[in-house]
Amino acid sequence: MYKILDRDTLPAYLATIPEVVAVLGNEPDPDILEIGDGNLNFVYRVTNPKDPSRVVIVKQAVPYLRMVGEEWPLGRDRMTYEIRALQLYNELVPDLVPTIYHADEEMSTLVMEYLGDHIILRFGMIDGVTYPHVAEHIGQFMAETLFKTSAWSMPSEERRQLMDRFTLNAELCKLTEEFIFTFPYMEHDSNYSNPATDQWARENIHTDTHYKLDVLAFKDLFVSKADALLHADLHSGSLMVNQTESYVIDMEFAYFGPFGFDVGKVISNFLLCCTSHLHRPGGADYRAWLIDQIDVIWTTFATRFNALWLEAGDSAMLIDGLLTAAEFEQLREDFMVELLRESVGFAACSMARRTLGIAGVADIRDIDDLDIRSTLEISNLQLSKQLMNERNALSSIDDLLALVRHHYEQPIL
Amino acid sequence: MYKILDRDTLPAYLATIPEVVAVLGNEPDPDILEIGDGNLNFVYRVTNPKDPSRVVIVKQAVPYLRMVGEEWPLGRDRMTYEIRALQLYNELVPDLVPTIYHADEEMSTLVMEYLGDHIILRFGMIDGVTYPHVAEHIGQFMAETLFKTSAWSMPSEERRQLMDRFTLNAELCKLTEEFIFTFPYMEHDSNYSNPATDQWARENIHTDTHYKLDVLAFKDLFVSKADALLHADLHSGSLMVNQTESYVIDMEFAYFGPFGFDVGKVISNFLLCCTSHLHRPGGADYRAWLIDQIDVIWTTFATRFNALWLEAGDSAMLIDGLLTAAEFEQLREDFMVELLRESVGFAACSMARRTLGIAGVADIRDIDDLDIRSTLEISNLQLSKQLMNERNALSSIDDLLALVRHHYEQPIL
Repeated sequence: MYKILDRDTLPAYLATIPEVVAVLGNEPDPDILEIGDGNLNFVYRVTNPKDPSRVVIVKQAVPYLRMVGEEWPLGRDRMTYEIRALQLYNELVPDLVPTIYHADEEMSTLVMEYLGDHIILRFGMIDGVTYPHVAEHIGQFMAETLFKTSAWSMPSEERRQLMDRFTLNAELCKLTEEFIFTFPYMEHDSNYSNPATDQWARENIHTDTHYKLDVLAFKDLFVSKADALLHADLHSGSLMVNQTESYVIDMEFAYFGPFGFDVGKVISNFLLCCTSHLHRPGGADYRAWLIDQIDVIWTTFATRFNALWLEAGDSAMLIDGLLTAAEFEQLREDFMVELLRESVGFAACSMARRTLGIAGVADIRDIDDLDIRSTLEISNLQLSKQLMNERNALSSIDDLLALVRHHYEQPIL
Repeated sequence: MYKILDRDTLPAYLATIPEVVAVLGNEPDPDILEIGDGNLNFVYRVTNPKDPSRVVIVKQAVPYLRMVGEEWPLGRDRMTYEIRALQLYNELVPDLVPTIYHADEEMSTLVMEYLGDHIILRFGMIDGVTYPHVAEHIGQFMAETLFKTSAWSMPSEERRQLMDRFTLNAELCKLTEEFIFTFPYMEHDSNYSNPATDQWARENIHTDTHYKLDVLAFKDLFVSKADALLHADLHSGSLMVNQTESYVIDMEFAYFGPFGFDVGKVISNFLLCCTSHLHRPGGADYRAWLIDQIDVIWTTFATRFNALWLEAGDSAMLIDGLLTAAEFEQLREDFMVELLRESVGFAACSMARRTLGIAGVADIRDIDDLDIRSTLEISNLQLSKQLMNERNALSSIDDLLALVRHHYEQPIL
């Protein structure tokens, strides 16, 4: 039966789980530190005081929004979907996600590997740290998880059975529908406010019919296109990294959605960081590094996705004998161009949302000077509009990189 | 517990259901006639011999394909989805579907209204009978059922809960994926064969890369785009009609799919019949009537869909304040043009499938002369290709009607 764990009850709970005892040891009084900085859940680091290398992370969902409190109820079912996604990711990409020691859907609790040598990528990137492998790891993660849960890989019935395990992650899907695809494009109480940015948005976003209808087309894809199991919240805050390793965390938004959503969200977070480095010392070099990483992310993703496609046998979508090798090659080429364009459209939505909506990124929001911040915010909105408007003219990652580099070479307002 | 009903066990089963007794009366020895001509299920008409107006239909799924036998197993779960869809349709369009007297998911059995004054539309159309209201009814059925189960009408979470009731209709989705979107476009043992048609298909379908990749794009939509609850097998064989009424039946394929699939399948069945009347006496007038019905189906559908949209409040997709009235109007206009094109693409797939695949239409397959039949089949395939190739140049139903009328004015091979 579900109950909320705390420092007092956590040791007894963990002591009942042999897989956890095997890691932590038999320790009646472990050190417990609440380390959650996320919005939704409680996260504890539990350590054996006699041997600090014996350590686990305990993550539990409570039936309300942690950052607000009990007055904002939020079903703890979200942990069910995080558990299911992380279990699947442990099969598909074991080197890129934390190891699970114990998963308990009824208790909405996960006990998993502690990543002590890693930091949240976003904070490293704000500090201008380069990570030689992270882009490759992100591309690999997306290729493996998206391709292998899609109809290009799975048989039809197995795929629908997998979909069925995520269909009811409805509450978190609704958050995305509203906070990414709706509120930022209108006057809404939940939106962030910064006077100069607000005015620019009123004149250039809220009244731009073409852009808003494009955003709605991407909302429609998010709502209705079930290409693959998405992480659905993949950004620089969902990655724990160091110089050699990268781990994807926080997959409570997981559901079947459009291929381009994870890809676009990741790209947008590199762009948002790039904008923030317009303002930081030595920014030009780091901006160049960030844009290069978008290249590596896409190229790794596309190359691996393509390789998996060539290795795949019969699937829901394709069976042997339907296409010639040349036809299959053309299909893959056309597909990747469309997927790039779709990703760019989602990146555009993500940039606008992170600029105008309640959930900004620390890269920008942590800048105290409102005028500087507003200049960067407007630059983000300009780029969002340009990405959305020009996406269908892009035929390759080089086209995208040229657009982005040109944007960052312009003087900002 | 499930058991297969037969003439011996049916009376006792029905006698336990008060709602059925209320219709049939207390009759220990009703007349039982097996009337199923479908491929999948057993269908019985059960009548009170003392009062033939007291009559019901009993439809039961068995765990195999009825037309083949136990050697082709097919989960009887399909009846679960037929029950769920028919229950929902009884709320949304009660005048256009049979009344349910009893629904039993465990027994995979439906007891429902007998439509004694109605015939299957396909057979009426083969005989050249005109029905003054059927096109309007079809348009109305599709507008109500598709709009009201979509994210343009439903709140986000309720919609996902409804989707969840249909996600696992996987076995029947797979049949569609294979028999409509795969096998007809390649050499496959399951395909129909008629030598001249086969040769034409080999030269003009199986080797037409552009057409095949278009078909795959529509297969992708069928597999992954969950716009609304579809009937998913809506054709002239799924309609019971007379001069005043129309009833939609046989919704065991129901699942969440793309808007254009039901629309396109219906249109294609009017076209297939139109082709068959190239060969029948007085065909020109009836062909003109059939093409006019496509106009009425689409126009009724689009008009009603639009009206529902104007009446709808906040939904998963739209909330008050996001769009101006002019922006909303442009959205609806663009949307209906895209939906017409999508429907035409699905119609193209359906025509090819009904021509080359195992499940033909009686309109054509019942023509004994193989040469005549082949001439008509090739005409269907030509139209299928033209619809697919030119769909994105269509901006209105008039454009589609002009294309179709021009096709039927050409001399056939």
